Amino acid sequence: MKSSHGANLFEIQKEYGFNIDEIKDFSSNVNPLGPSPKAMTKLENNLNKVGVYPDPNYDQLLSSIEKYTNVSRDKILLTSGSTNLISSFISLINPKNAIIFNPSYSEYERELNKINSNIISYDLDKSNDFAIDCEKLSRMIKENDVSLVILTNPNNPTGYAIENRKLEELIKSNNCYFMIDETYVEFSDVDKYSAVNLTEKCDNLLVIRSTSKFFAAAGIRLGYGITGNKKLYDEINTRTNLWNINIFADILGGEMFTDTDYHKKVFEFINSEKEKMISTLEKIDCLKVYPSKSNFVLCEILDKKLTAHELREKLIPHALIIRDCASFNNLSEYFFRFCILDEQSNDKLLKLIEDILK
Amino acid sequence: MKSSHGANLFEIQKEYGFNIDEIKDFSSNVNPLGPSPKAMTKLENNLNKVGVYPDPNYDQLLSSIEKYTNVSRDKILLTSGSTNLISSFISLINPKNAIIFNPSYSEYERELNKINSNIISYDLDKSNDFAIDCEKLSRMIKENDVSLVILTNPNNPTGYAIENRKLEELIKSNNCYFMIDETYVEFSDVDKYSAVNLTEKCDNLLVIRSTSKFFAAAGIRLGYGITGNKKLYDEINTRTNLWNINIFADILGGEMFTDTDYHKKVFEFINSEKEKMISTLEKIDCLKVYPSKSNFVLCEILDKKLTAHELREKLIPHALIIRDCASFNNLSEYFFRFCILDEQSNDKLLKLIEDILK
Repeated sequence: MKSSHGANLFEIQKEYGFNIDEIKDFSSNVNPLGPSPKAMTKLENNLNKVGVYPDPNYDQLLSSIEKYTNVSRDKILLTSGSTNLISSFISLINPKNAIIFNPSYSEYERELNKINSNIISYDLDKSNDFAIDCEKLSRMIKENDVSLVILTNPNNPTGYAIENRKLEELIKSNNCYFMIDETYVEFSDVDKYSAVNLTEKCDNLLVIRSTSKFFAAAGIRLGYGITGNKKLYDEINTRTNLWNINIFADILGGEMFTDTDYHKKVFEFINSEKEKMISTLEKIDCLKVYPSKSNFVLCEILDKKLTAHELREKLIPHALIIRDCASFNNLSEYFFRFCILDEQSNDKLLKLIEDILK
Repeated sequence: MKSSHGANLFEIQKEYGFNIDEIKDFSSNVNPLGPSPKAMTKLENNLNKVGVYPDPNYDQLLSSIEKYTNVSRDKILLTSGSTNLISSFISLINPKNAIIFNPSYSEYERELNKINSNIISYDLDKSNDFAIDCEKLSRMIKENDVSLVILTNPNNPTGYAIENRKLEELIKSNNCYFMIDETYVEFSDVDKYSAVNLTEKCDNLLVIRSTSKFFAAAGIRLGYGITGNKKLYDEINTRTNLWNINIFADILGGEMFTDTDYHKKVFEFINSEKEKMISTLEKIDCLKVYPSKSNFVLCEILDKKLTAHELREKLIPHALIIRDCASFNNLSEYFFRFCILDEQSNDKLLKLIEDILK
């Protein structure tokens, strides 16, 4: 019926006879510490709200996001999953010409194709760690009469993040809309990379946030967008509907955005494990490990002794699933991505990759 | 931000100093027995799924609805709340001329106004218990070049339901779309009133179902639609998005639709209480009690000694909230509606109405 992203654990479970809990999914990019315990306790204590219509104003949820983002609620759009917001915004802007980056999340291309936008690809340069060249980007925007630039920051699957001071220049000096998907921004230094503050100064900007990865709450379908453009805000808002966010998302969201101890713990855990994994893998000669500001790491098998697909296949019998990145535009079949999971699984993955590639 | 339906319990709670649980909301039309206990147990045991993306095919949920409706899954559209489906379908059909009934649920009019449809009102006749005259309706469809008829069955707030054998004739003999909202159908004799079976024979039909009222699960935002029109099905489906239904709706839905003991218990409780309430109120001379196939009852204060608003105000200090129906088109300020709640609350309401009106 609908296409899926990443690994189909159900199929792998069946084929190899694993228990679903045994499989370590390094392809999903979900924070392994799970959701905020404080928010989960609140959820458990409020299951009887199942029959209650959510507050149509989502007062408490919006207060919580206001505190978290330091942006007032008249700029915050709530959405049932960020995919919905991506889709609404793209169809609203309806760009004749739009720029996407290669490689990046595949959903943007799908949405642009739906409305027959002309897609202009900015191929990121692996020899420059997939960084964005702002001058080149501005040139492309002008030369192609571009009305929308879609940027993931940090980018998936490369892990590269562009600083907000550079973004500010870009957004101010170009007469087109920017959609910045910050699904992974909380794993980075938010003050340095997030464009949320720019929504106060630039009205050609929509920032999109998710709760699926950092907050480990994909099941509740809660995303939000931030824009200082009142007209855009109103138009997107009328495209959504009454009570779009379910009551459990409302309850969890009311709590998890303000659980700062949890935010700190997740950030520190992911970044210390990431550092360990990167420094271990960098010692493997045939492997290029790209720097990452997110909770996942992109690697390239330089000697081409095996493909990412073959590596993935070798890891599956050990109940470890990595992401073969061959399906991403502008990446060869020798690229793979893994995210940070619990310490024990990370160590198991490191050991196996060393054994296979060394 | 968004308009709300029915009572604002939060405001009433503040004004009168009630605890929110003390207030008996006779205006919400929600089954007072609460959600299926079997489904709730499953939910409690699966809270750890909060971080899991829902199955994009919603296999288990669809199997469950297939069994419940006896319709195959290629006719079943899942939606995050039935309001979303109502909105999508109306904007897809984009009718130049559409018929709605007065009185009925106000949301249809709002959606039709959004897209500037010409609304043709069929004013239901109170002297005929708000029944639909099929010949008159067919004439209106033809005379006005109508492309969409929106019908709630049973109707809210009147409680009238039209039999499916009459609907079959209507739908087959008229060259326009019918949207039949069956939010309350489970409180009636489903075999006699539901149009679901007609989707096998008529391709100008969409049936909409909700889980907010009979299943007492408004918080999870789960609705579904049934149509035998493959083209309509596909077009509505592409307007929705990946993972639109949250994981808790998926889990609850997988269980509650097949909990037949629960269905039977709810139906029997509501109908026996309804019978008691109607027969008690019918003894009050100044009150006209309209027959109801739903879980609510419409009444008219014939002697006009007080308005529905005044009656509502008199009941609020007792922590009982009824629906003043003055805001419905084609109803005067002397109409009110109440739904069936628990036995004790129902008896308290009966006693107070008797005291006030006798």
